[in-house]
Amino acid sequence: MEALSKAKQKWIRSLQLKKNRDQEKLFVVEGEKSVLEGLSAFAAQLELIVSLDAFSLQIPSQFHSKTFIVTTKELEQISELKTPNKCIAVFKRPNSSVLSDQFTIVLDGVQDPGNMGTILRLADWFGVKQLVCSKDTVDCYNSKVIQSSMGAIYRISVHYTDLASYLTNTTQQKYGAMLNGKNYKGISYPKDAILIMGNEGKGVRPEIEALIDFPVTIPRFGEAESLNVATATAILLAEIIQ
Amino acid sequence: MEALSKAKQKWIRSLQLKKNRDQEKLFVVEGEKSVLEGLSAFAAQLELIVSLDAFSLQIPSQFHSKTFIVTTKELEQISELKTPNKCIAVFKRPNSSVLSDQFTIVLDGVQDPGNMGTILRLADWFGVKQLVCSKDTVDCYNSKVIQSSMGAIYRISVHYTDLASYLTNTTQQKYGAMLNGKNYKGISYPKDAILIMGNEGKGVRPEIEALIDFPVTIPRFGEAESLNVATATAILLAEIIQ
Repeated sequence: MEALSKAKQKWIRSLQLKKNRDQEKLFVVEGEKSVLEGLSAFAAQLELIVSLDAFSLQIPSQFHSKTFIVTTKELEQISELKTPNKCIAVFKRPNSSVLSDQFTIVLDGVQDPGNMGTILRLADWFGVKQLVCSKDTVDCYNSKVIQSSMGAIYRISVHYTDLASYLTNTTQQKYGAMLNGKNYKGISYPKDAILIMGNEGKGVRPEIEALIDFPVTIPRFGEAESLNVATATAILLAEIIQ
Repeated sequence: MEALSKAKQKWIRSLQLKKNRDQEKLFVVEGEKSVLEGLSAFAAQLELIVSLDAFSLQIPSQFHSKTFIVTTKELEQISELKTPNKCIAVFKRPNSSVLSDQFTIVLDGVQDPGNMGTILRLADWFGVKQLVCSKDTVDCYNSKVIQSSMGAIYRISVHYTDLASYLTNTTQQKYGAMLNGKNYKGISYPKDAILIMGNEGKGVRPEIEALIDFPVTIPRFGEAESLNVATATAILLAEIIQ
């Protein structure tokens, strides 16, 4: 375990930009719990760990050659958090392809990092392994997404692609959360269904809506105008996965 | 419509503190959509409106005597938002008692304003009219709660009380979201059930847990450690209210 060079400090900070993260195919995780979870779940993908001296004792010895010690002040400079939490790890992104034999959540233009993180955490609770997102959906490697996904990022593969083309070329049945669909309850969903969730304000865009086989709706009993996309996903997953 | 005095500016700012809001039994709403919704739903409770000159045309004339015009700079000084949105309204809180004849959500120590706002919005979607909260639950008149509740604050009555005493004295059946309960599906919930949701990290506290008649659990199919309290509430409400 050596000290972190200025050059490496600068490089880690550069990964706060999506463009740089994408180019290097990396992602950054902050905080004790998430970092330790990554060391256990994602060991082979580890690029490096940055740690306060006090925390380094908790890092298993096989990772010491990739561990760099920083001062509290240096950690503050690298961190995206207001109050940085002892350590930061950089991981290589997994290489995976979209699979066509399993239940899949499709996100069409979801923008809010908190919503994306909550949907990942939900997917992880319900055993969903794959998300396919439109190219304008929020980056799943955004620090706020990683924070709110609670480790789900290690277990769920997230793909960004041209949705219209993906949905046109799959034979899986496509269910979409809409305001004018059939009641989502009492439907027999196939194990390899696709569930399409739209943007926070605009919903699913028309060209994607045209590709939905079964629009489904969560009935309203009160007066709210809409449901948040993450809570709607929660309700639909709880019905579909059982 | 006159200009807003310095004294009134100071007074509105003072309502950013819970202590002052509580003492005066008021709450503050920001933003075009929420303010107009309040004028329609909560007209009798209106204390005053603060508006940019340009927005004042959209305020119905019966409220003009309570409308005060501000400059963009003044609005920035009064607002709790980084980018204030044209208008702010102050409303009197409704006077209501806890009712024992209806479905009720109980929150035991929920801390995050976003979660409280999401739960209010959900309750509003499902037609739930009443929340009863422990005294250490986040203030429902917190600006972040009001922002994320999307108008639900006008339609749902929220009470803060000693939960142990409330739950001991009601004859309503008490369901609680726990990790070790019975599967929440396939239960016949009475129309006037009470649903108890706990704190984000600690869940329901032991003395409240002891008062639960039916602990219920959302089965896990994946590896996430827990569900967020707002998404768990979404899933339970979608099952209970139908």
